[in-house]
Amino acid sequence: MPKQSGQMARGGLFVVIEGLDAAGKTTLVKRLVSTYRRQRIPLVTVREPGGTRVSEQARRILLDPRAAISPQSELFLYLAARAQLVADVIRPALARRDLVIADRFNLSTYAYQIGGRGLPEREVMAADRLARDGVSPDITVLLTVSEAEARRRKRRAGMKADRMERQSRLFYRGVRAEYLRQARKRRGILQVDSEIGAEDVFTHVKAQIDRRLRQRGLI
Amino acid sequence: MPKQSGQMARGGLFVVIEGLDAAGKTTLVKRLVSTYRRQRIPLVTVREPGGTRVSEQARRILLDPRAAISPQSELFLYLAARAQLVADVIRPALARRDLVIADRFNLSTYAYQIGGRGLPEREVMAADRLARDGVSPDITVLLTVSEAEARRRKRRAGMKADRMERQSRLFYRGVRAEYLRQARKRRGILQVDSEIGAEDVFTHVKAQIDRRLRQRGLI
Repeated sequence: MPKQSGQMARGGLFVVIEGLDAAGKTTLVKRLVSTYRRQRIPLVTVREPGGTRVSEQARRILLDPRAAISPQSELFLYLAARAQLVADVIRPALARRDLVIADRFNLSTYAYQIGGRGLPEREVMAADRLARDGVSPDITVLLTVSEAEARRRKRRAGMKADRMERQSRLFYRGVRAEYLRQARKRRGILQVDSEIGAEDVFTHVKAQIDRRLRQRGLI
Repeated sequence: MPKQSGQMARGGLFVVIEGLDAAGKTTLVKRLVSTYRRQRIPLVTVREPGGTRVSEQARRILLDPRAAISPQSELFLYLAARAQLVADVIRPALARRDLVIADRFNLSTYAYQIGGRGLPEREVMAADRLARDGVSPDITVLLTVSEAEARRRKRRAGMKADRMERQSRLFYRGVRAEYLRQARKRRGILQVDSEIGAEDVFTHVKAQIDRRLRQRGLI
């Protein structure tokens, strides 16, 4: 297996934005993308699952509200989408020294499939390693939001629930707990309370990304 | 995770027929199915990838000759199909004490994804364990065929190649070598030279299955 990594000294920078729905991921990604585009930083933005032909096909199966999908099958569809996205989009972008900004990546797998579905950690981690094939995020931003605030935001936005969003409150407690457990356990996760406001979140996160871009000689 | 196994004393019997294309799998499966149906043994037959809504969708992606699929993504699509098939069809059938006959199962993953694609064994095995969720074949029949004979049979049958079948000769040598390596290494694999003729293959395999059916009190 060829192993290359986003962390290689001469590669680009791989930034992942993570968190529950309504934590503010989309808003933050949009802000970052428009800012760095204005600064003319070569940039690729991806969203999981999706971004390649195979990944979009997997996405369609996963988000179909009528589909009955086992927890294991769900994991593998997400990983199929990730593997193709890494091979076709993320690895080439990092090799070109681009900034890659992803809306969700492997922390979502740990949170939803281990914390939410209860799949065994060791096997899920091994499978995810295969899917990423040596590519790891340089910075993972975990946006947190309280249950009450998430509900308020969803109501305000009139969000329609897809298959993943129709899970029970218990499922989401497991996801939330695993997100926080991973943030304590793993290095490279920047936990940010989204209730400080979108503007402050953006300023804080951008400062961290800028620091890493400078370290890599990318700005 | 609930762990149940086809091997539990009171379960059914799980038989898998494996081997390269043109090794005679389809012929053998058909013969076994019609024989056991005549004997009124409750029987379920499955084919990988396929057999559930999700699995058929994964199958369509996998066998599309235009698809460009990374080795990792390919693995996960097969495992998504397997996980759903185990959950919806194989586990319930074994719980009903049926005989389950599968055209390919996890030995194919080892042969094609480790031997053919060169994916790392440990991670592939961990991912496959997740997909099977405690279900293992009781007997795996590995039908072998020489390269020359396989070519002859394919020519005779006018077989049209799907995406998987359009691989190089080198790929197939890797697959063949891994099939044989696994057969030496693992217990419960019955290796049968398909060139002894379809009738003798059938008689030999049926005798082994009958013995296990009797041990389980299923005939």
